[in-house]
Amino acid sequence: MRKITILGATGSIGRSTVDVVSEHPDKFEVEAVVGGSNVETLAETAKRVKARCAVVADATKLADLKEALSDTDIDCGAGEKAVLEAVDRPADVILAAIAGTAGLAPTYASLKKGRRIALANKESLVCAGQSFMKAAAAIGAEVFAVDSEHNALQQALMAGQSQDVTIATITASGGPFRTWSREDIAAAPAEVASRHPVWAMGAKILIDSATLMNKGLELIEASHLFDLRADQLDVVVHPDAIVHAIAQWRDGAVTAGLAAPDMRIPIANALGFERRLKMPYPVLDFVKISRLNFEAPDEERFPCLKLAKAVLRAGGPLPAAMNAANEVAVAAYMGGQIKFYDIYTLVAAVCSVYAGEGVRAPASVEDALAIHNDATKMAQEHLELILAKH
Amino acid sequence: MRKITILGATGSIGRSTVDVVSEHPDKFEVEAVVGGSNVETLAETAKRVKARCAVVADATKLADLKEALSDTDIDCGAGEKAVLEAVDRPADVILAAIAGTAGLAPTYASLKKGRRIALANKESLVCAGQSFMKAAAAIGAEVFAVDSEHNALQQALMAGQSQDVTIATITASGGPFRTWSREDIAAAPAEVASRHPVWAMGAKILIDSATLMNKGLELIEASHLFDLRADQLDVVVHPDAIVHAIAQWRDGAVTAGLAAPDMRIPIANALGFERRLKMPYPVLDFVKISRLNFEAPDEERFPCLKLAKAVLRAGGPLPAAMNAANEVAVAAYMGGQIKFYDIYTLVAAVCSVYAGEGVRAPASVEDALAIHNDATKMAQEHLELILAKH
Repeated sequence: MRKITILGATGSIGRSTVDVVSEHPDKFEVEAVVGGSNVETLAETAKRVKARCAVVADATKLADLKEALSDTDIDCGAGEKAVLEAVDRPADVILAAIAGTAGLAPTYASLKKGRRIALANKESLVCAGQSFMKAAAAIGAEVFAVDSEHNALQQALMAGQSQDVTIATITASGGPFRTWSREDIAAAPAEVASRHPVWAMGAKILIDSATLMNKGLELIEASHLFDLRADQLDVVVHPDAIVHAIAQWRDGAVTAGLAAPDMRIPIANALGFERRLKMPYPVLDFVKISRLNFEAPDEERFPCLKLAKAVLRAGGPLPAAMNAANEVAVAAYMGGQIKFYDIYTLVAAVCSVYAGEGVRAPASVEDALAIHNDATKMAQEHLELILAKH
Repeated sequence: MRKITILGATGSIGRSTVDVVSEHPDKFEVEAVVGGSNVETLAETAKRVKARCAVVADATKLADLKEALSDTDIDCGAGEKAVLEAVDRPADVILAAIAGTAGLAPTYASLKKGRRIALANKESLVCAGQSFMKAAAAIGAEVFAVDSEHNALQQALMAGQSQDVTIATITASGGPFRTWSREDIAAAPAEVASRHPVWAMGAKILIDSATLMNKGLELIEASHLFDLRADQLDVVVHPDAIVHAIAQWRDGAVTAGLAAPDMRIPIANALGFERRLKMPYPVLDFVKISRLNFEAPDEERFPCLKLAKAVLRAGGPLPAAMNAANEVAVAAYMGGQIKFYDIYTLVAAVCSVYAGEGVRAPASVEDALAIHNDATKMAQEHLELILAKH
């Protein structure tokens, strides 16, 4: 039996994890489930997986959680400190899927326990990738990527060493605007940008998929996860979303990671130990698939990708700053305050401020959070300038 | 420096191996080169790679070889015994690419030295796969597949254990008759069947590609190389010849091995040790490739594939018998004695005789050769029956 703790249990990744774990009640016992504020789903989840402990990050929800779990002996907690205490409980693997910078501290704490981390919190790598991976190496924690692209790349890279990779490519479905003109994209509201052709995901990440910023953030994550330089990383558009990553090796051989577009697959992969977990998913039928299509990403229509590549090359505080500015910009776009291409304009403006600040990467999670907070403030100020001009 | 011995140095694989080795004069020194009967090419090759020893299998060619190498101090030998003596010389890796059953004894001898074998002799696995792999495991010899499909599958399988594979698929280009009607195929002469759309290969293997028997033989090889059952193996047609093998895992993840259709790539892969060899091949440009196409193999038009799958399932003496009968049938087709579909008829007839003989696999190379010789005789007799009817 492996003990698992699920951080972000009520989100999309968390619920998929519960599905995977529920397929193997003989292999997993759930130590703790941690949610943000949705007490009802958290309590249901805790009961379903027979967790020993349930924690809601929103400190005001403790009474609600206790009430919802009053007919069980599940330990209840609430607030930031309780989240970290949940991380501290014994576990063989921690699924780290708390979204945003709120996930930084608990994910980093998970890592410090020297366990296996099934990592779905992008910000840990984007904002503090260097210190995160250094800490993992120092303590011997295994980091398994849960994102479909990174999970696929991780498997493709099992055929060799990162230093022998010529190009590691992650694929992009292309998002809802793949075939749209720049003019039509410019006028599209957030409701339309949120219609993803393949994946069911949270609201913010749907917009990131429409701008291709999501792919840019994934390049930055990949560079840290797999110790790859910017010039070893690339993106190709693959609307079928079957091939998720391709590793090209210096002897001419190429390996690729594929899967049906189902988040449970990378999660099941990250939760397998000596043996891969047996899951009830159908095999891919390549005859039925018939064609796999590839095309170049258009950095004119999707300038956020070009920006993110430059940020990846520059490093230093830029990834954390870009991520913070992007959060502000996407929220404003979702709120109908700005247009689609204002996202790029706003993020690029903030990045240009940090571009002069040298290449020192955040040395700690605290450093990363400080950059995040500064950049967030700067982005908000810039947003007001944009709004004043409207 | 790694010492390499090249068995089959004058054939297509051997010449590609010389290309690979010549790219890395600092990494390889060639101990011995062994050829069949082409003394001129063998002598040239021996000089080019500065081999210590050159052996021609044809015992009558010793004087010619000595003459051709008279201006060097390269050791010369000729005949079967000299071939085995060449294998016995010190080497870190032996490239085993002597075609046909003539390659069985030297390949097996290479294995017994406990070295790394870069294996391109199909018959070692098809005819005597069980004893071959058992001997390799017992002595700790590493077997690296040089065939593009097996080399790709080997890399795809690095992501896990064979027992966790649901389906391992090797791809077929489909050969020259992929889009032809059965009637047109039936009437096609060997010259047309030899026009392969992708690969430059020897004459016999070109016909095997046209019948898809080649793919059937590869399934049998794969079952031995990677310890996969018949129900874990499949074939899909992929005319682009970029994806060579796909491994589907029980957790839903999928890994694939790809490469440009260039035999030097799997050879370079098999000759890499701690690090992959750096080769001057361009990376695959997926935007330029644009589409990868897949379709089902048609076992009505290509019944040899169906037959080979049944032979793989049945095991025992059948793979060796099928291979022997196929050699006789293909030679007769190339000689214009029989029609395309007579290849299948003849091979199936010989297989049907062996089908009743239980499942005992050849216990040794001698056993395998005995089956081969019996089946060859039987196929020749059956060929005469077919010719008498014409």
